[in-house]
Amino acid sequence: MSSMWGDNIKISLFGESHGQGIGVVVDGLPPGFELDMKKIAAHTKRRAPGDFAWSTRRKEADEPEILSGFFNGKTCGTPLAAVIRNTDTRSIDYADLTAKPRPGHADITGRIRYKGANDPRGGGHFSGRITAPLTFAGAICMQILESSGIEISAHICEIAGITDSGAPTPGATPPSKKTFPVYDDERGVLMQKAIEEAFFKTDSVGGVVEAFAHGFPAGYGDPFFGSIESRVASMFFSIPAVKGVEFGIGFEASRHRGSENNDSPVMAEGNVVSRKTNNAGGIEGGISNGMPIVVRCAFKPTSSIAAEQDTVNLNTMTNDKLSVRGRHDPCIVPRAVPVVESALAIVLLDVLMGPRLG
Amino acid sequence: MSSMWGDNIKISLFGESHGQGIGVVVDGLPPGFELDMKKIAAHTKRRAPGDFAWSTRRKEADEPEILSGFFNGKTCGTPLAAVIRNTDTRSIDYADLTAKPRPGHADITGRIRYKGANDPRGGGHFSGRITAPLTFAGAICMQILESSGIEISAHICEIAGITDSGAPTPGATPPSKKTFPVYDDERGVLMQKAIEEAFFKTDSVGGVVEAFAHGFPAGYGDPFFGSIESRVASMFFSIPAVKGVEFGIGFEASRHRGSENNDSPVMAEGNVVSRKTNNAGGIEGGISNGMPIVVRCAFKPTSSIAAEQDTVNLNTMTNDKLSVRGRHDPCIVPRAVPVVESALAIVLLDVLMGPRLG
Amino acid sequence: MSSMWGDNIKISLFGESHGQGIGVVVDGLPPGFELDMKKIAAHTKRRAPGDFAWSTRRKEADEPEILSGFFNGKTCGTPLAAVIRNTDTRSIDYADLTAKPRPGHADITGRIRYKGANDPRGGGHFSGRITAPLTFAGAICMQILESSGIEISAHICEIAGITDSGAPTPGATPPSKKTFPVYDDERGVLMQKAIEEAFFKTDSVGGVVEAFAHGFPAGYGDPFFGSIESRVASMFFSIPAVKGVEFGIGFEASRHRGSENNDSPVMAEGNVVSRKTNNAGGIEGGISNGMPIVVRCAFKPTSSIAAEQDTVNLNTMTNDKLSVRGRHDPCIVPRAVPVVESALAIVLLDVLMGPRLG
Amino acid sequence: MSSMWGDNIKISLFGESHGQGIGVVVDGLPPGFELDMKKIAAHTKRRAPGDFAWSTRRKEADEPEILSGFFNGKTCGTPLAAVIRNTDTRSIDYADLTAKPRPGHADITGRIRYKGANDPRGGGHFSGRITAPLTFAGAICMQILESSGIEISAHICEIAGITDSGAPTPGATPPSKKTFPVYDDERGVLMQKAIEEAFFKTDSVGGVVEAFAHGFPAGYGDPFFGSIESRVASMFFSIPAVKGVEFGIGFEASRHRGSENNDSPVMAEGNVVSRKTNNAGGIEGGISNGMPIVVRCAFKPTSSIAAEQDTVNLNTMTNDKLSVRGRHDPCIVPRAVPVVESALAIVLLDVLMGPRLG
Repeated sequence: MSSMWGDNIKISLFGESHGQGIGVVVDGLPPGFELDMKKIAAHTKRRAPGDFAWSTRRKEADEPEILSGFFNGKTCGTPLAAVIRNTDTRSIDYADLTAKPRPGHADITGRIRYKGANDPRGGGHFSGRITAPLTFAGAICMQILESSGIEISAHICEIAGITDSGAPTPGATPPSKKTFPVYDDERGVLMQKAIEEAFFKTDSVGGVVEAFAHGFPAGYGDPFFGSIESRVASMFFSIPAVKGVEFGIGFEASRHRGSENNDSPVMAEGNVVSRKTNNAGGIEGGISNGMPIVVRCAFKPTSSIAAEQDTVNLNTMTNDKLSVRGRHDPCIVPRAVPVVESALAIVLLDVLMGPRLG
Repeated sequence: MSSMWGDNIKISLFGESHGQGIGVVVDGLPPGFELDMKKIAAHTKRRAPGDFAWSTRRKEADEPEILSGFFNGKTCGTPLAAVIRNTDTRSIDYADLTAKPRPGHADITGRIRYKGANDPRGGGHFSGRITAPLTFAGAICMQILESSGIEISAHICEIAGITDSGAPTPGATPPSKKTFPVYDDERGVLMQKAIEEAFFKTDSVGGVVEAFAHGFPAGYGDPFFGSIESRVASMFFSIPAVKGVEFGIGFEASRHRGSENNDSPVMAEGNVVSRKTNNAGGIEGGISNGMPIVVRCAFKPTSSIAAEQDTVNLNTMTNDKLSVRGRHDPCIVPRAVPVVESALAIVLLDVLMGPRLG
Repeated sequence: MSSMWGDNIKISLFGESHGQGIGVVVDGLPPGFELDMKKIAAHTKRRAPGDFAWSTRRKEADEPEILSGFFNGKTCGTPLAAVIRNTDTRSIDYADLTAKPRPGHADITGRIRYKGANDPRGGGHFSGRITAPLTFAGAICMQILESSGIEISAHICEIAGITDSGAPTPGATPPSKKTFPVYDDERGVLMQKAIEEAFFKTDSVGGVVEAFAHGFPAGYGDPFFGSIESRVASMFFSIPAVKGVEFGIGFEASRHRGSENNDSPVMAEGNVVSRKTNNAGGIEGGISNGMPIVVRCAFKPTSSIAAEQDTVNLNTMTNDKLSVRGRHDPCIVPRAVPVVESALAIVLLDVLMGPRLG
Repeated sequence: MSSMWGDNIKISLFGESHGQGIGVVVDGLPPGFELDMKKIAAHTKRRAPGDFAWSTRRKEADEPEILSGFFNGKTCGTPLAAVIRNTDTRSIDYADLTAKPRPGHADITGRIRYKGANDPRGGGHFSGRITAPLTFAGAICMQILESSGIEISAHICEIAGITDSGAPTPGATPPSKKTFPVYDDERGVLMQKAIEEAFFKTDSVGGVVEAFAHGFPAGYGDPFFGSIESRVASMFFSIPAVKGVEFGIGFEASRHRGSENNDSPVMAEGNVVSRKTNNAGGIEGGISNGMPIVVRCAFKPTSSIAAEQDTVNLNTMTNDKLSVRGRHDPCIVPRAVPVVESALAIVLLDVLMGPRLG
């Protein structure tokens, strides 16, 4: 609890890494919306394993089957449920796995929380794999937002301390179309080298993803608990491995003076009130101001590493050592980019569909 | 929407800066809990204006009157409603105020969102003053948590780039008892100088507040949308001026290697599994691990500054200038410390009171 | 829990019968709506005690003070909080009261639920008096619905087995304008005699209230948990003393054949699809069909009666006797009529304000 | 919206009658609970078509496949998702079907609500078939309640005006074990004759289901919006065809005097406070009082009948005639009995699992 989220668009997420299947129910979608399934597949494929040389070797089609809420190529408006079968679930001896908790994972907390009854194989319900149906749900929301002129795109902002910079420009190809989604490809090469280097050292690296939403209209969201920041953050911190979320210039704002940080209103083309700067990331008082929404989230380095680490043995209750075997990304950030885009899309559609007369 | 928050402890927040009153309803409190009203008053007083030489001159007792849910000195278990009257609401000509939106405020977004019908005086419902009832609600929750051995304390972690460091130690006086709540008083003096300097330059500064929860038991919280991070962040981003939230080492984790960042399990005194480090801030897989919960949030510099700023005139739809008059803190961070403590207390009590059999 | 209700219009209810005050927070109201306070006062006055010869003698103005969300005579769109002070709270010795639970009341269940900590005076939070702020909140919603052409009116459908019949007619004065709100005044006289007779016998009677909503547009509501019936019933069963709720011909439908019960679609004036009958009470598949929404709720007889009744003594844990003293209506149904109207208005506005694109 | 329900046990329901599949996600189940799958299958089989001579001829195994949240025969505590494939979905020409809405169905309201995009085949998402996964979810909850000594059982209380009477007795076989679940088998024969008679006349009949929960402990539930009545009613009115819900003696209470209706407290065996009567159906002030919880719900007669009925033609916008072809129960009440049991179980488990300290 809770695996369900949302006010106007509600999603219900389920599944374990090595169980029968994983999936999502999306309720509240506007009816009669024609989905471009190829585009959705292209989006979710970016999250799927295997796109990178150094990515996990687990090969799964990860193609969701839609069970309901979709008829004649269009959304029905009723709950849309989609299931992804777990096909490549190698049989493993998880007895050994439960004895020695993997550092950085939820092996111990999950065991306490679920009294030892949760499925430990591959991280079970805690697996990053559960973001596949979330990404699918978000791909649908992205299309609906696009039809209202709202474009969402994310890029790798930082990996192993190497930073990218840039923002979506009208007409230019967004990094989300690239295999390695950065603005500055030279920096991208450095990042990939850092990943490979960590990989060869049986280690892992983390990074930051930055997402933009362009075209989101002013006047949506609310003060306090319904603020866009609150809603986006509650969703982003649901993505496994996220440990920080910031909007606009975020933590950096705390080091600025008010005179620098305030985004001064200014008259723009078409007699419209715009802002001189966008330090607030498009949100003032929890409400969109028409500027691009900008948000970053920090991913910790992959917890599963082949290097030997200290841990405990829960059978003997003694200190022990562990090398995590198996197929693991040395950096999940590249595959996290479409997850972040999807997560943002779900939230912004939820906000956009808010009360009719309010 | 939404001014209501919570699953097990629910709060409903209301009020405008210059209206009749502000307040909060707290539902779901355990019945029969004896409240130490002096302690609550001491906590909320830390948020009240006037404790600092350079603080806003607005003088209000800000003593909440409890209307319901409290009988014979104890909580009833029924909704506890508390109201704070707005007494020092100087009559002002807000017509001028609505013409020229204050940079960094929600003047424009609020106007769009509420179609011009919201109370513009003193920021109305967007005012930081609305955190007073939130702080009061949290003070109640803090006492209940304390009775379960859970101690929450926050300190000023950074102001104007000047950092404090430290963490609660058993037996030592927490900084929350100090007028200027830092661990390192010398750094605190530097911070105060930076605030004063900004004030004299008719400017403002921001900062970071760090909060700790000690004694929170392992096994509470959930993966995904019910993660402790998601719930805390949704609450923290409800506090006006917060633009970033991070747990444990947060954004810094994204620059570490997995081998450094993983908090290795280790046997501790009493045959208990602990962690060697606490980079995760006490949360793994969204669930508490028994280590101290650590969270930081970034406050932007106060938006209201006396310095002349660029803005627009919404009557003439032209660019204009504005100096924000009135009583404003050049830095809200010191007064935000008890707000953050209260916000964290509400969330952690909500988590702790989760489903009985689950 | 939960004292909060709603998706798009949210209300938060609080208060005890003899505490400092009772009240409500209404969040999500459309901004800029001008409230006719006289009309609201007239509506809530119908619920206030003292309108009938045989009504409780408790005299309270019950005039809510609005604390927030209301500016220049209009809703702000922000949370509107209103408080009613408890003024006529005679000091009583409630020690005696807690020893002998009153039959039919929540004295025992409340004591268990709240571990003895709830305010027992006058029923505390279980008091019918808490419907005063609910009625106020609904009066606001009624005005907003009226501005969209939706008229809500209720009448006494039955008291002590004596039935009224009728339905709102355009142009005719609705019974809600009458002191004793029935269509058939002769039947109303009989009802009043039945109430008086019960009163003289130190007893009480129950009855049924029927509510209509005219002009509610087709296509609102949802199947399953969001059905209009589900939402209305969850609200109606929140009104103390309600033990049954039915829509259209309700329980009677279960005795009809399908051929009789089905409301056949038929072409009506203006090339509009109407229904030949309205056995479904305006709701098909949980969704409004454009016909009047019709709902009835059954009120049990007032639990507090002067007649001696069997009970137990919780101090001695023996059987005992009790005559409930104090000011009690021998029938709450007449005063319940505006409560039911208000409750229906809150729900229908909540439904009407549902997601924007959905 | 909303297809999701619950506070502590959350369910998410999806599916269309003739789509790929229908199903449910159940979140919040206590972890480590061993499910007796045979018992669950026996329960859901009672709802499945074909158990009665006159039942619909549609043959489907309706065996749910569990996809997640279930490991080694036990609940994980994580979301348990189950899917039922739609196998017997004969291809039909639904163009004709959408032209002439079936009287008593949601064909028109669904069309308006979903702008014509919902799946019309077999009623789509409005189909009674969607109660299959709900029944499955409830079967799980029933087992968990049973392990706490709470027994739920329902019976046919009335069909076509012919009433059954009785209540569960310790040691006696409950009617739920019978093919035709009544206490009085002679009355049951009369009911079956009435169903057959209606069937031969190409018509249908309705009825009332009564459910009991024994062993539910006192002190659970809440006043106002969290009342057991509110929660049960919101769930029961989600079951297609339900038009009335009442607790205890329900509407009949409104015709009683207070002196008759009040359930007087009385000392019972073991020095426990019981009640002399149970007119309130086990609920006082929204809270359980330890007496059996008693609730009835009225089902309208099946809307689909072979007899020719008046309707409209939406293509020509003229009045028309329709005989509904296909496989339809002339009375859904017998199959509704396990649905009602399941619905009650979900709600009571949700209530029972309420906040830990509250």
